[in-house]
Amino acid sequence: MGDGEELLAVAFALADAAAQITLPQFRAPSLMVENKADGGNFDPVTQADKAAELAMRAVLAARRPDDGILGEEGENVAGSSGYTWVLDPIDGTRAFLSGVPSWGTLIAVNHGAAPILGMIDQPFTAERFWGDANGAQYQRGRGRPQPIRVRNVECLKDAVLFSTFPEIGTPADRTAFEAVSAAVRLTRYGIDCYAYALLAMGQIDLVIEAGLHPYDIQGPMAVVTGAGGIVTNWDGGPAEAGGRIIAAANRRIYADALELLNSV
Amino acid sequence: MGDGEELLAVAFALADAAAQITLPQFRAPSLMVENKADGGNFDPVTQADKAAELAMRAVLAARRPDDGILGEEGENVAGSSGYTWVLDPIDGTRAFLSGVPSWGTLIAVNHGAAPILGMIDQPFTAERFWGDANGAQYQRGRGRPQPIRVRNVECLKDAVLFSTFPEIGTPADRTAFEAVSAAVRLTRYGIDCYAYALLAMGQIDLVIEAGLHPYDIQGPMAVVTGAGGIVTNWDGGPAEAGGRIIAAANRRIYADALELLNSV
Repeated sequence: MGDGEELLAVAFALADAAAQITLPQFRAPSLMVENKADGGNFDPVTQADKAAELAMRAVLAARRPDDGILGEEGENVAGSSGYTWVLDPIDGTRAFLSGVPSWGTLIAVNHGAAPILGMIDQPFTAERFWGDANGAQYQRGRGRPQPIRVRNVECLKDAVLFSTFPEIGTPADRTAFEAVSAAVRLTRYGIDCYAYALLAMGQIDLVIEAGLHPYDIQGPMAVVTGAGGIVTNWDGGPAEAGGRIIAAANRRIYADALELLNSV
Repeated sequence: MGDGEELLAVAFALADAAAQITLPQFRAPSLMVENKADGGNFDPVTQADKAAELAMRAVLAARRPDDGILGEEGENVAGSSGYTWVLDPIDGTRAFLSGVPSWGTLIAVNHGAAPILGMIDQPFTAERFWGDANGAQYQRGRGRPQPIRVRNVECLKDAVLFSTFPEIGTPADRTAFEAVSAAVRLTRYGIDCYAYALLAMGQIDLVIEAGLHPYDIQGPMAVVTGAGGIVTNWDGGPAEAGGRIIAAANRRIYADALELLNSV
Protein backbone atom coordinates (compact mmCIF):
# COMPACT_ATOMS: atom_id res chain seq x y z
CA MET A 1 0.00 0.00 0.00
CA GLY A 2 1.44 3.37 -1.01
CA ASP A 3 1.47 6.25 1.43
CA GLY A 4 -1.54 7.94 -0.20
CA GLU A 5 -3.47 4.67 -0.19
CA GLU A 6 -2.67 4.12 3.47
CA LEU A 7 -3.83 7.63 4.41
CA LEU A 8 -7.06 7.10 2.45
CA ALA A 9 -7.68 3.76 4.14
CA VAL A 10 -7.24 5.43 7.53
CA ALA A 11 -9.63 8.23 6.52
CA PHE A 12 -12.22 5.59 5.60
CA ALA A 13 -11.70 3.87 8.96
CA LEU A 14 -12.10 7.22 10.75
CA ALA A 15 -15.34 8.01 8.93
CA ASP A 16 -16.69 4.53 9.65
CA ALA A 17 -15.80 4.84 13.33
CA ALA A 18 -17.51 8.24 13.60
CA ALA A 19 -20.62 7.02 11.77
CA GLN A 20 -21.07 4.16 14.22
CA ILE A 21 -21.51 6.78 16.94
CA THR A 22 -23.29 9.58 15.09
CA LEU A 23 -25.84 7.71 13.03
CA PRO A 24 -27.67 6.00 15.92
CA GLN A 25 -27.82 9.38 17.70
CA PHE A 26 -29.13 11.33 14.71
CA ARG A 27 -32.82 12.08 15.34
CA ALA A 28 -32.66 10.17 18.63
CA PRO A 29 -35.23 11.72 20.98
CA SER A 30 -32.95 11.78 24.00
CA LEU A 31 -30.13 13.73 22.38
CA MET A 32 -28.22 15.54 25.10
CA VAL A 33 -27.09 19.06 24.32
CA GLU A 34 -24.69 21.34 26.09
CA ASN A 35 -24.14 24.96 25.36
CA LYS A 36 -20.42 25.53 25.06
CA ALA A 37 -20.62 29.08 23.74
CA ASP A 38 -20.05 32.14 25.85
CA GLY A 39 -22.64 34.87 25.88
CA GLY A 40 -25.67 32.94 24.78
CA ASN A 41 -24.73 32.02 21.22
CA PHE A 42 -26.39 28.78 20.22
CA ASP A 43 -23.49 26.42 19.58
CA PRO A 44 -24.53 22.98 20.79
CA VAL A 45 -22.15 20.14 21.28
CA THR A 46 -23.72 16.76 21.45
CA GLN A 47 -22.61 13.72 23.32
CA ALA A 48 -22.37 12.15 19.88
CA ASP A 49 -19.83 14.77 18.79
CA LYS A 50 -17.55 14.03 21.71
CA ALA A 51 -17.95 10.26 21.56
CA ALA A 52 -17.34 10.21 17.81
CA GLU A 53 -14.08 12.11 18.19
CA LEU A 54 -12.95 9.65 20.85
CA ALA A 55 -13.70 6.79 18.46
CA MET A 56 -11.69 8.50 15.72
CA ARG A 57 -8.77 9.14 18.08
CA ALA A 58 -8.80 5.45 18.99
CA VAL A 59 -8.42 4.56 15.30
CA LEU A 60 -5.46 6.93 14.99
CA ALA A 61 -3.85 5.63 18.17
CA ALA A 62 -3.95 2.14 16.68
CA ARG A 63 -3.03 2.88 13.08
CA ARG A 64 -1.12 6.19 13.08
CA PRO A 65 0.38 6.55 16.57
CA ASP A 66 3.10 8.95 15.37
CA ASP A 67 0.77 11.44 13.70
CA GLY A 68 -0.52 14.64 15.27
CA ILE A 69 -4.22 15.35 15.88
CA LEU A 70 -6.16 18.60 15.72
CA GLY A 71 -9.74 17.87 16.71
CA GLU A 72 -12.77 20.03 17.47
CA GLU A 73 -13.52 18.42 20.80
CA GLY A 74 -10.34 17.06 22.37
CA GLU A 75 -6.80 18.22 23.14
CA ASN A 76 -4.36 18.73 20.29
CA VAL A 77 -1.77 15.99 19.92
CA ALA A 78 1.68 16.87 18.58
CA GLY A 79 2.97 14.01 16.44
CA SER A 80 6.48 13.08 15.35
CA SER A 81 5.75 11.95 11.78
CA GLY A 82 5.04 15.39 10.35
CA TYR A 83 1.46 14.36 9.53
CA THR A 84 -1.47 15.93 11.36
CA TRP A 85 -5.05 14.68 11.24
CA VAL A 86 -7.70 17.38 11.40
CA LEU A 87 -11.05 16.10 12.67
CA ASP A 88 -14.55 17.47 13.05
CA PRO A 89 -16.82 14.58 14.00
CA ILE A 90 -20.06 16.54 13.44
CA ASP A 91 -19.75 19.66 11.34
CA GLY A 92 -23.17 21.28 11.34
CA THR A 93 -24.33 20.47 14.86
CA ARG A 94 -27.36 22.73 14.40
CA ALA A 95 -28.42 20.64 11.40
CA PHE A 96 -27.73 17.46 13.38
CA LEU A 97 -29.92 18.70 16.21
CA SER A 98 -32.71 19.66 13.81
CA GLY A 99 -32.79 16.33 12.00
CA VAL A 100 -31.40 17.71 8.72
CA PRO A 101 -28.89 15.41 7.00
CA SER A 102 -26.59 18.25 5.85
CA TRP A 103 -24.12 17.75 8.71
CA GLY A 104 -21.01 15.74 8.04
CA THR A 105 -17.93 14.19 9.51
CA LEU A 106 -14.88 16.14 8.29
CA ILE A 107 -11.48 14.50 8.06
CA ALA A 108 -8.23 15.88 6.68
CA VAL A 109 -4.56 15.11 6.93
CA ASN A 110 -1.82 17.64 6.27
CA HIS A 111 1.95 17.75 6.36
CA GLY A 112 2.21 21.17 7.96
CA ALA A 113 0.37 23.22 5.35
CA ALA A 114 -2.61 22.62 3.04
CA PRO A 115 -4.34 19.25 3.49
CA ILE A 116 -3.06 16.49 1.24
CA LEU A 117 -6.25 14.48 1.67
CA GLY A 118 -9.71 15.50 2.83
CA MET A 119 -13.08 13.85 3.30
CA ILE A 120 -16.73 14.82 3.89
CA ASP A 121 -18.86 11.92 5.11
CA GLN A 122 -22.66 12.05 5.47
CA PRO A 123 -23.76 8.78 7.08
CA PHE A 124 -27.56 9.24 6.86
CA THR A 125 -27.58 9.71 3.08
CA ALA A 126 -24.63 7.26 2.91
CA GLU A 127 -22.57 9.72 0.88
CA ARG A 128 -18.80 10.00 1.09
CA PHE A 129 -16.71 12.59 -0.75
CA TRP A 130 -12.92 12.73 -0.73
CA GLY A 131 -10.16 14.53 -2.57
CA ASP A 132 -6.40 14.67 -2.89
CA ALA A 133 -3.79 15.62 -5.48
CA ASN A 134 -5.13 12.96 -7.86
CA GLY A 135 -8.71 14.24 -7.96
CA ALA A 136 -11.95 13.82 -6.05
CA GLN A 137 -14.31 10.89 -5.65
CA TYR A 138 -17.90 10.26 -4.57
CA GLN A 139 -19.28 7.06 -3.13
CA ARG A 140 -22.84 6.28 -2.15
CA GLY A 141 -23.33 3.36 0.20
CA ARG A 142 -21.41 0.36 -1.08
CA GLY A 143 -21.51 1.68 -4.65
CA ARG A 144 -18.41 2.09 -6.77
CA PRO A 145 -16.52 5.36 -6.19
CA GLN A 146 -17.06 7.81 -9.02
CA PRO A 147 -14.83 10.72 -9.98
CA ILE A 148 -16.43 14.12 -9.38
CA ARG A 149 -15.52 17.49 -10.81
CA VAL A 150 -16.59 21.11 -10.46
CA ARG A 151 -18.68 22.60 -13.25
CA ASN A 152 -17.88 25.46 -15.60
CA VAL A 153 -20.38 28.25 -15.10
CA GLU A 154 -18.46 31.22 -16.42
CA CYS A 155 -20.38 34.26 -15.22
CA LEU A 156 -21.24 35.26 -11.69
CA LYS A 157 -24.78 36.07 -12.79
CA ASP A 158 -25.31 32.38 -13.61
CA ALA A 159 -23.74 31.10 -10.40
CA VAL A 160 -25.42 29.40 -7.43
CA LEU A 161 -24.02 30.51 -4.06
CA PHE A 162 -24.35 28.70 -0.74
CA SER A 163 -23.56 30.00 2.70
CA THR A 164 -24.31 29.62 6.35
CA PHE A 165 -25.11 33.35 6.30
CA PRO A 166 -27.25 35.15 7.38
CA GLU A 167 -26.53 33.25 10.58
CA ILE A 168 -22.81 33.90 10.98
CA GLY A 169 -20.24 36.64 10.38
CA THR A 170 -19.79 40.20 11.54
CA PRO A 171 -21.95 42.99 10.06
CA ALA A 172 -19.02 43.93 7.78
CA ASP A 173 -18.68 40.30 6.66
CA ARG A 174 -22.38 40.24 5.92
CA THR A 175 -22.23 43.39 3.81
CA ALA A 176 -19.39 41.93 1.75
CA PHE A 177 -21.27 38.67 1.37
CA GLU A 178 -24.39 40.51 0.23
CA ALA A 179 -22.43 42.23 -2.54
CA VAL A 180 -21.72 38.79 -4.00
CA SER A 181 -25.19 37.48 -3.22
CA ALA A 182 -26.71 40.36 -5.20
CA ALA A 183 -24.63 39.41 -8.25
CA VAL A 184 -25.45 35.69 -8.48
CA ARG A 185 -28.44 33.81 -9.86
CA LEU A 186 -29.41 32.12 -6.61
CA THR A 187 -28.28 32.18 -2.97
CA ARG A 188 -29.17 29.40 -0.56
CA TYR A 189 -28.52 29.12 3.17
CA GLY A 190 -27.83 26.66 5.93
CA ILE A 191 -26.45 23.53 4.25
CA ASP A 192 -23.19 23.44 6.28
CA CYS A 193 -20.32 21.32 4.95
CA TYR A 194 -22.63 19.62 2.47
CA ALA A 195 -22.34 22.77 0.34
CA TYR A 196 -18.66 22.04 -0.34
CA ALA A 197 -19.59 18.52 -1.43
CA LEU A 198 -22.17 19.96 -3.84
CA LEU A 199 -19.56 22.36 -5.18
CA ALA A 200 -17.12 19.51 -5.77
CA MET A 201 -19.90 17.52 -7.52
CA GLY A 202 -20.60 20.33 -9.96
CA GLN A 203 -24.04 21.12 -8.54
CA ILE A 204 -23.30 24.65 -7.30
CA ASP A 205 -20.60 27.27 -7.95
CA LEU A 206 -19.67 29.19 -4.82
CA VAL A 207 -19.50 28.78 -1.05
CA ILE A 208 -18.74 31.85 1.06
CA GLU A 209 -18.43 31.66 4.84
CA ALA A 210 -16.80 33.37 7.80
CA GLY A 211 -15.61 32.41 11.25
CA LEU A 212 -14.37 28.95 10.28
CA HIS A 213 -11.86 26.90 12.26
CA PRO A 214 -9.15 24.78 10.63
CA TYR A 215 -11.20 21.64 11.31
CA ASP A 216 -14.21 23.20 9.53
CA ILE A 217 -12.38 23.79 6.27
CA GLN A 218 -9.45 21.40 5.77
CA GLY A 219 -11.60 18.39 4.84
CA PRO A 220 -13.90 20.32 2.48
CA MET A 221 -10.93 22.25 1.05
CA ALA A 222 -9.17 19.08 -0.12
CA VAL A 223 -12.41 17.74 -1.63
CA VAL A 224 -13.07 20.95 -3.57
CA THR A 225 -9.50 21.46 -4.79
CA GLY A 226 -9.27 17.76 -5.69
CA ALA A 227 -12.37 18.30 -7.84
CA GLY A 228 -10.70 21.20 -9.63
CA GLY A 229 -12.06 24.10 -7.57
CA ILE A 230 -10.37 26.93 -5.69
CA VAL A 231 -10.48 27.57 -1.94
CA THR A 232 -8.81 30.57 -0.26
CA ASN A 233 -9.53 33.10 2.43
CA TRP A 234 -11.11 36.43 1.46
CA ASP A 235 -7.64 37.95 1.02
CA GLY A 236 -6.78 35.33 -1.57
CA GLY A 237 -4.41 33.59 0.85
CA PRO A 238 -4.27 30.01 2.16
CA ALA A 239 -7.54 28.65 3.55
CA GLU A 240 -6.26 25.94 5.87
CA ALA A 241 -6.24 28.16 8.96
CA GLY A 242 -9.95 28.92 8.52
CA GLY A 243 -11.46 32.36 9.05
CA ARG A 244 -13.32 33.95 6.13
CA ILE A 245 -13.45 31.44 3.29
CA ILE A 246 -14.40 31.49 -0.37
CA ALA A 247 -14.64 28.30 -2.43
CA ALA A 248 -15.33 28.53 -6.14
CA ALA A 249 -15.82 26.17 -9.06
CA ASN A 250 -13.40 27.98 -11.36
CA ARG A 251 -10.95 30.85 -11.53
CA ARG A 252 -13.23 33.27 -13.37
CA ILE A 253 -16.08 33.11 -10.86
CA TYR A 254 -13.57 33.11 -8.04
CA ALA A 255 -11.89 36.32 -9.26
CA ASP A 256 -15.19 38.15 -9.76
CA ALA A 257 -16.55 37.09 -6.36
CA LEU A 258 -13.31 37.94 -4.55
CA GLU A 259 -13.31 41.40 -6.07
CA LEU A 260 -16.86 42.00 -4.86
CA LEU A 261 -16.04 40.70 -1.38
CA ASN A 262 -13.24 43.22 -1.11
CA SER A 263 -15.01 46.15 -2.77
CA VAL A 264 -17.28 46.96 0.16
CA MET B 1 -59.90 -2.14 1.00
CA GLY B 2 -61.55 0.71 2.90
CA ASP B 3 -61.79 4.14 1.37
CA GLY B 4 -58.88 5.49 3.43
CA GLU B 5 -56.73 2.49 2.53
CA GLU B 6 -57.56 2.94 -1.15
CA LEU B 7 -56.63 6.64 -1.04
CA LEU B 8 -53.33 5.82 0.71
CA ALA B 9 -52.53 3.11 -1.84
CA VAL B 10 -53.12 5.63 -4.63
CA ALA B 11 -50.90 8.19 -2.86
CA PHE B 12 -48.13 5.58 -2.69
CA ALA B 13 -48.58 4.84 -6.39
CA LEU B 14 -48.42 8.58 -7.16
CA ALA B 15 -45.22 9.04 -5.18
CA ASP B 16 -43.65 6.00 -6.83
CA ALA B 17 -44.60 7.27 -10.29
CA ALA B 18 -43.11 10.71 -9.57
CA ALA B 19 -39.90 9.25 -8.14
CA GLN B 20 -39.31 7.21 -11.29
CA ILE B 21 -39.05 10.53 -13.15
CA THR B 22 -37.45 12.80 -10.58
CA LEU B 23 -34.76 10.59 -9.09
CA PRO B 24 -32.84 9.88 -12.32
CA GLN B 25 -32.93 13.63 -13.09
CA PHE B 26 -31.71 14.74 -9.65
CA ARG B 27 -28.09 15.87 -10.04
CA ALA B 28 -28.16 14.95 -13.73
CA PRO B 29 -25.71 17.25 -15.51
CA SER B 30 -28.03 18.04 -18.41
CA LEU B 31 -30.96 19.24 -16.33
CA MET B 32 -33.02 21.62 -18.44
CA VAL B 33 -34.37 24.71 -16.73
CA GLU B 34 -36.95 27.21 -17.81
CA ASN B 35 -37.74 30.47 -16.14
CA LYS B 36 -41.47 30.67 -15.70
CA ALA B 37 -41.46 33.73 -13.48
CA ASP B 38 -42.21 37.22 -14.69
CA GLY B 39 -39.81 39.99 -13.91
CA GLY B 40 -36.63 38.03 -13.38
CA ASN B 41 -37.46 36.13 -10.22
CA PHE B 42 -35.61 32.86 -10.15
CA ASP B 43 -38.36 30.24 -10.18
CA PRO B 44 -37.14 27.34 -12.27
CA VAL B 45 -39.33 24.59 -13.56
CA THR B 46 -37.56 21.51 -14.65
CA GLN B 47 -38.50 19.04 -17.30
CA ALA B 48 -38.57 16.54 -14.46
CA ASP B 49 -41.26 18.57 -12.68
CA LYS B 50 -43.52 18.53 -15.73
CA ALA B 51 -42.87 14.90 -16.63
CA ALA B 52 -43.44 13.75 -13.06
CA GLU B 53 -46.83 15.47 -12.92
CA LEU B 54 -47.83 13.79 -16.18
CA ALA B 55 -46.86 10.42 -14.69
CA MET B 56 -48.95 11.16 -11.60
CA ARG B 57 -51.93 12.24 -13.69
CA ALA B 58 -51.67 8.97 -15.61
CA VAL B 59 -51.96 7.05 -12.32
CA LEU B 60 -55.07 9.05 -11.38
CA ALA B 61 -56.62 8.58 -14.82
CA ALA B 62 -56.28 4.82 -14.36
CA ARG B 63 -57.21 4.47 -10.71
CA ARG B 64 -59.31 7.50 -9.79
CA PRO B 65 -60.88 8.73 -13.04
CA ASP B 66 -63.74 10.52 -11.28
CA ASP B 67 -61.55 12.58 -8.94
CA GLY B 68 -60.52 16.17 -9.54
CA ILE B 69 -56.87 17.27 -9.88
CA LEU B 70 -55.14 20.46 -8.80
CA GLY B 71 -51.51 20.30 -9.91
CA GLU B 72 -48.66 22.76 -10.00
CA GLU B 73 -47.82 22.22 -13.64
CA GLY B 74 -50.93 21.16 -15.57
CA GLU B 75 -54.56 22.24 -16.01
CA ASN B 76 -56.99 21.76 -13.17
CA VAL B 77 -59.40 18.86 -13.60
CA ALA B 78 -62.89 19.08 -12.09
CA GLY B 79 -63.96 15.66 -10.86
CA SER B 80 -67.39 14.24 -10.10
CA SER B 81 -66.53 12.19 -6.99
CA GLY B 82 -66.06 15.13 -4.64
CA TYR B 83 -62.40 14.15 -4.11
CA THR B 84 -59.61 16.38 -5.40
CA TRP B 85 -55.94 15.38 -5.60
CA VAL B 86 -53.49 18.19 -4.97
CA LEU B 87 -50.06 17.54 -6.53
CA ASP B 88 -46.67 19.20 -6.47
CA PRO B 89 -44.21 16.85 -8.17
CA ILE B 90 -41.12 18.78 -7.06
CA ASP B 91 -41.60 21.17 -4.18
CA GLY B 92 -38.28 22.94 -3.68
CA THR B 93 -37.11 23.22 -7.28
CA ARG B 94 -34.21 25.44 -6.18
CA ALA B 95 -33.00 22.68 -3.89
CA PHE B 96 -33.52 20.15 -6.68
CA LEU B 97 -31.42 22.28 -9.03
CA SER B 98 -28.68 22.70 -6.43
CA GLY B 99 -28.36 19.01 -5.62
CA VAL B 100 -29.81 19.32 -2.10
CA PRO B 101 -32.16 16.47 -1.11
CA SER B 102 -34.61 18.72 0.75
CA TRP B 103 -37.08 18.88 -2.14
CA GLY B 104 -40.05 16.57 -2.10
CA THR B 105 -43.06 15.29 -3.96
CA LEU B 106 -46.20 16.59 -2.28
CA ILE B 107 -49.49 14.76 -2.55
CA ALA B 108 -52.80 15.46 -0.87
CA VAL B 109 -56.42 14.56 -1.36
CA ASN B 110 -59.31 16.61 -0.04
CA HIS B 111 -63.09 16.50 -0.12
CA GLY B 112 -63.59 20.19 -0.70
CA ALA B 113 -61.86 21.57 2.39
CA ALA B 114 -58.83 20.54 4.46
CA PRO B 115 -56.87 17.54 3.11
CA ILE B 116 -57.96 14.18 4.48
CA LEU B 117 -54.64 12.59 3.52
CA GLY B 118 -51.26 14.13 2.74
CA MET B 119 -47.80 12.90 1.85
CA ILE B 120 -44.24 14.23 1.59
CA ASP B 121 -41.94 11.94 -0.39
CA GLN B 122 -38.15 12.42 -0.66
CA PRO B 123 -36.86 9.81 -3.11
CA PHE B 124 -33.09 10.43 -2.73
CA THR B 125 -33.07 9.82 1.01
CA ALA B 126 -35.84 7.23 0.47
CA GLU B 127 -38.05 8.89 3.10
CA ARG B 128 -41.82 8.97 2.94
CA PHE B 129 -44.07 10.79 5.42
CA TRP B 130 -47.86 10.69 5.41
CA GLY B 131 -50.71 11.72 7.66
CA ASP B 132 -54.46 11.50 7.97
CA ALA B 133 -57.11 11.52 10.70
CA ASN B 134 -55.58 8.39 12.23
CA GLY B 135 -52.07 9.81 12.72
CA ALA B 136 -48.83 10.17 10.80
CA GLN B 137 -46.28 7.63 9.60
CA TYR B 138 -42.68 7.56 8.43
CA GLN B 139 -41.10 5.00 6.16
CA ARG B 140 -37.51 4.76 5.03
CA GLY B 141 -36.86 2.66 1.96
CA ARG B 142 -38.56 -0.70 2.33
CA GLY B 143 -38.51 -0.43 6.11
CA ARG B 144 -41.62 -0.84 8.24
CA PRO B 145 -43.71 2.33 8.59
CA GLN B 146 -43.32 3.93 12.02
CA PRO B 147 -45.72 6.29 13.74
CA ILE B 148 -44.36 9.83 14.13
CA ARG B 149 -45.47 12.59 16.43
CA VAL B 150 -44.63 16.23 17.13
CA ARG B 151 -42.62 17.01 20.26
CA ASN B 152 -43.59 19.02 23.29
CA VAL B 153 -41.28 22.01 23.60
CA GLU B 154 -43.38 24.35 25.72
CA CYS B 155 -41.63 27.72 25.42
CA LEU B 156 -40.90 29.72 22.32
CA LYS B 157 -37.41 30.44 23.63
CA ASP B 158 -36.62 26.70 23.39
CA ALA B 159 -38.14 26.26 19.93
CA VAL B 160 -36.39 25.59 16.62
CA LEU B 161 -37.90 27.50 13.69
CA PHE B 162 -37.47 26.72 9.99
CA SER B 163 -38.38 28.88 7.05
CA THR B 164 -37.66 29.58 3.43
CA PHE B 165 -37.13 33.19 4.52
CA PRO B 166 -35.09 35.35 4.00
CA GLU B 167 -35.74 34.39 0.40
CA ILE B 168 -39.51 34.87 0.19
CA GLY B 169 -42.23 37.16 1.50
CA THR B 170 -42.91 40.89 1.40
CA PRO B 171 -40.92 43.28 3.61
CA ALA B 172 -43.88 43.35 6.03
CA ASP B 173 -43.98 39.53 6.10
CA ARG B 174 -40.28 39.50 6.82
CA THR B 175 -40.62 41.92 9.73
CA ALA B 176 -43.33 39.77 11.27
CA PHE B 177 -41.23 36.66 10.74
CA GLU B 178 -38.22 38.31 12.37
CA ALA B 179 -40.26 39.05 15.49
CA VAL B 180 -40.74 35.30 15.93
CA SER B 181 -37.19 34.48 14.86
CA ALA B 182 -35.84 36.81 17.57
CA ALA B 183 -37.81 34.89 20.20
CA VAL B 184 -36.76 31.33 19.38
CA ARG B 185 -33.64 29.35 20.22
CA LEU B 186 -32.60 28.68 16.63
CA THR B 187 -33.75 29.67 13.14
CA ARG B 188 -32.71 27.75 10.05
CA TYR B 189 -33.40 28.49 6.40
CA GLY B 190 -33.96 26.89 3.05
CA ILE B 191 -35.10 23.32 3.78
CA ASP B 192 -38.35 23.57 1.79
CA CYS B 193 -41.09 20.99 2.42
CA TYR B 194 -38.65 18.82 4.36
CA ALA B 195 -39.10 21.22 7.28
CA TYR B 196 -42.72 20.10 7.70
CA ALA B 197 -41.56 16.48 7.76
CA LEU B 198 -39.06 17.34 10.51
CA LEU B 199 -41.80 19.10 12.45
CA ALA B 200 -44.04 16.03 12.18
CA MET B 201 -41.12 13.82 13.32
CA GLY B 202 -40.60 15.88 16.46
CA GLN B 203 -37.22 17.26 15.35
CA ILE B 204 -38.21 20.94 15.14
CA ASP B 205 -41.06 23.08 16.49
CA LEU B 206 -42.13 25.74 14.01
CA VAL B 207 -42.33 26.39 10.26
CA ILE B 208 -43.30 29.88 9.09
CA GLU B 209 -43.63 30.72 5.42
CA ALA B 210 -45.42 33.07 3.04
CA GLY B 211 -46.57 33.05 -0.55
CA LEU B 212 -47.57 29.39 -0.60
CA HIS B 213 -49.96 27.83 -3.09
CA PRO B 214 -52.51 25.15 -2.13
CA TYR B 215 -50.27 22.47 -3.67
CA ASP B 216 -47.34 23.66 -1.49
CA ILE B 217 -49.19 23.20 1.79
CA GLN B 218 -51.94 20.58 1.56
CA GLY B 219 -49.59 17.57 1.63
CA PRO B 220 -47.40 18.92 4.46
CA MET B 221 -50.46 20.16 6.35
CA ALA B 222 -52.01 16.69 6.57
CA VAL B 223 -48.68 15.20 7.68
CA VAL B 224 -48.21 17.77 10.44
CA THR B 225 -51.79 17.67 11.70
CA GLY B 226 -51.76 13.86 11.54
CA ALA B 227 -48.68 13.98 13.79
CA GLY B 228 -50.53 16.15 16.31
CA GLY B 229 -49.37 19.59 15.15
CA ILE B 230 -51.26 22.72 14.13
CA VAL B 231 -51.24 24.40 10.70
CA THR B 232 -53.10 27.61 9.92
CA ASN B 233 -52.59 30.84 8.06
CA TRP B 234 -51.22 33.87 9.92
CA ASP B 235 -54.78 34.96 10.74
CA GLY B 236 -55.43 31.67 12.49
CA GLY B 237 -57.71 30.55 9.66
CA PRO B 238 -57.64 27.46 7.40
CA ALA B 239 -54.30 26.77 5.71
CA GLU B 240 -55.42 24.74 2.73
CA ALA B 241 -55.61 27.73 0.38
CA GLY B 242 -51.95 28.58 1.04
CA GLY B 243 -50.67 32.12 1.50
CA ARG B 244 -48.91 32.96 4.77
CA ILE B 245 -48.58 29.76 6.79
CA ILE B 246 -47.59 28.84 10.33
CA ALA B 247 -47.13 25.23 11.41
CA ALA B 248 -46.41 24.45 15.06
CA ALA B 249 -45.73 21.40 17.20
CA ASN B 250 -48.24 22.34 19.89
CA ARG B 251 -50.87 24.87 20.83
CA ARG B 252 -48.75 26.83 23.29
CA ILE B 253 -45.92 27.56 20.87
CA TYR B 254 -48.46 28.18 18.15
CA ALA B 255 -50.32 30.79 20.19
CA ASP B 256 -47.14 32.63 21.21
CA ALA B 257 -45.75 32.66 17.68
CA LEU B 258 -49.05 33.76 16.15
CA GLU B 259 -49.26 36.64 18.59
CA LEU B 260 -45.78 37.80 17.62
CA LEU B 261 -46.55 37.48 13.92
CA ASN B 262 -49.52 39.78 14.33
CA SER B 263 -47.91 42.22 16.75
CA VAL B 264 -45.72 44.00 14.20
